Amino acid sequence: MNHVIAPVSATVPAPLDLHGPIARDLEEVERILQREMRSRHPRVAEVLDHVRHYRGKRLRPVLVLLSARACGSVRPAHHVLAAVVEMIHTATLVHDDVLDNATVRRHVRTINAGWGTQASILLGDHLFTHAFHLASTLGDARVCRIIGEATNKVCAGELRQGLEKGNLELSEADYYEIIEGKTAELIACCCQLGALYAEASETTVAGMTRYGRHLGIAFQIADDLLDLTGEEQQTGKSLGTDLEQQKLTLPLIHWFASQPASTVTRVQQLLTSPSNHKHAAILPLLVESGSMAYARTRALEHAAQARAELTCLSPSPYRTILETMSEQVVQRNH
Amino acid sequence: MNHVIAPVSATVPAPLDLHGPIARDLEEVERILQREMRSRHPRVAEVLDHVRHYRGKRLRPVLVLLSARACGSVRPAHHVLAAVVEMIHTATLVHDDVLDNATVRRHVRTINAGWGTQASILLGDHLFTHAFHLASTLGDARVCRIIGEATNKVCAGELRQGLEKGNLELSEADYYEIIEGKTAELIACCCQLGALYAEASETTVAGMTRYGRHLGIAFQIADDLLDLTGEEQQTGKSLGTDLEQQKLTLPLIHWFASQPASTVTRVQQLLTSPSNHKHAAILPLLVESGSMAYARTRALEHAAQARAELTCLSPSPYRTILETMSEQVVQRNH
Repeated sequence: MNHVIAPVSATVPAPLDLHGPIARDLEEVERILQREMRSRHPRVAEVLDHVRHYRGKRLRPVLVLLSARACGSVRPAHHVLAAVVEMIHTATLVHDDVLDNATVRRHVRTINAGWGTQASILLGDHLFTHAFHLASTLGDARVCRIIGEATNKVCAGELRQGLEKGNLELSEADYYEIIEGKTAELIACCCQLGALYAEASETTVAGMTRYGRHLGIAFQIADDLLDLTGEEQQTGKSLGTDLEQQKLTLPLIHWFASQPASTVTRVQQLLTSPSNHKHAAILPLLVESGSMAYARTRALEHAAQARAELTCLSPSPYRTILETMSEQVVQRNH
Repeated sequence: MNHVIAPVSATVPAPLDLHGPIARDLEEVERILQREMRSRHPRVAEVLDHVRHYRGKRLRPVLVLLSARACGSVRPAHHVLAAVVEMIHTATLVHDDVLDNATVRRHVRTINAGWGTQASILLGDHLFTHAFHLASTLGDARVCRIIGEATNKVCAGELRQGLEKGNLELSEADYYEIIEGKTAELIACCCQLGALYAEASETTVAGMTRYGRHLGIAFQIADDLLDLTGEEQQTGKSLGTDLEQQKLTLPLIHWFASQPASTVTRVQQLLTSPSNHKHAAILPLLVESGSMAYARTRALEHAAQARAELTCLSPSPYRTILETMSEQVVQRNH
């Protein structure tokens, strides 16, 4: 399962059927990304082009735009902010793929598979700093602060997760702290910026920020479950890397906490061994013990908490899509 | 010569004898760096601690502070800005060391040598984003824009340099474009911010920015010469990596442009071969042909242009130090 290359296709997953204004907003975001991610130097243009075709769900731009429309209206700054958050997210993906030795991302080969580690590191840095530069062109210190703080929390979460690999004592509280940083923070930031720039009230901005945070936590728990049970062909990315890298996620943390010490020790030994059969040996244990179900329940709870926050909004088609998204993030196969 | 580990020592190089106000300012910058680069998680605290001890020349903070004092006075924001630019510079060093497979930096082992590639990538990202976050706390959109733009140019230069490795047709114009981005831009930004926050006139800010740019170009040409001729024990870092990585710098670009095609082809073949004797074979050619001297002359010219820009300042001890620095950057052995 690990690092098997899925058939490369240009298929773009489209989990949300977005029509009308949001679809047009997204086109504007794409135009900004296209304008910003180009170079007159052929070798640079080639990698920027490739990474632009890492077209995924565009979850983060969609959240900026939907939050804006659900709270009021979309302004030109929203398009820029949506491009900024997508660029930051792409930077983390490019670097993640180096960390995971991943070869496929969103159905195309990863930058590291195509151009090597060096290009991936430098491209990720370029994307991070380009995003900050683009954000700063809005001339609003508040935006720089929100994006600076969120992105820093993302990277602090990623750094901690990286350094905690192999720590088989990781607790559920540690896990939540890590995913709240590396995933939920940026998603919360998207909803916050969408609402803030639509001139929503302080209460609504706070409510939307909490919506994003719960959505992000639910999303990451589901993503970690997918790394254990997903099909590479459907997800379009390399899977099974968490166990391989001794990166503890919720099901295994729950399993360790609920089993007798001798059983735990045996599985910890398997995890740290060079065995190629970790996934095949461990997944059934997590399923039979109910640890997979436990993690799925936690994801559903956070999705429900996200949904509950949306009562701060008046009913609208955009609020309905935000509600639907909280269901979709935990019921996805890609 | 490549990757030989120099004896590790905690010696801090001190090329400038800075006393009085600037020394006290630097202490304040260190306090900010210490406060910002800590974590309550032991595994994270350990790498942050180590990288803080990458104590080098602190060239960039010194330039912020000297520019401020030479133009007026140092304000608390200058200390923060000095910490920000040092953090950005450190981020680039941490990632550079991965790209160069370097084992020693500033007389201590590199992050990649001690903690591996993954930790280095994540730590670099953390430093970049922490720097932006810290800059944004000043609440000044202008600062975010200057730092965002400069850092993005640094990374664009680094990305281009990375992707141009192995391009043996690189021209002198390409070389300048790369080093103006990856090195001169951040140094210019330091001088600009120092002057701007000391409320210097527009003309003075522009003059100081140009001073920084020329200083940066001179510094980088000298640094590239040092990679060819330096002693690892003195520089405290791994050397000889440019030829190893087919990264063309000024002496070799000049040599290629001034030799007959057949000689050029022979050396290009040597560069792309797996030979371990590239450095020993190529350095004498660069020395004898005058290509090393050519590059040194260019560095001296930029140092002189930097010095000439300082006439925008009234005479002061700080202006004198800035003059001295333009001499020192091209006459260093570390």
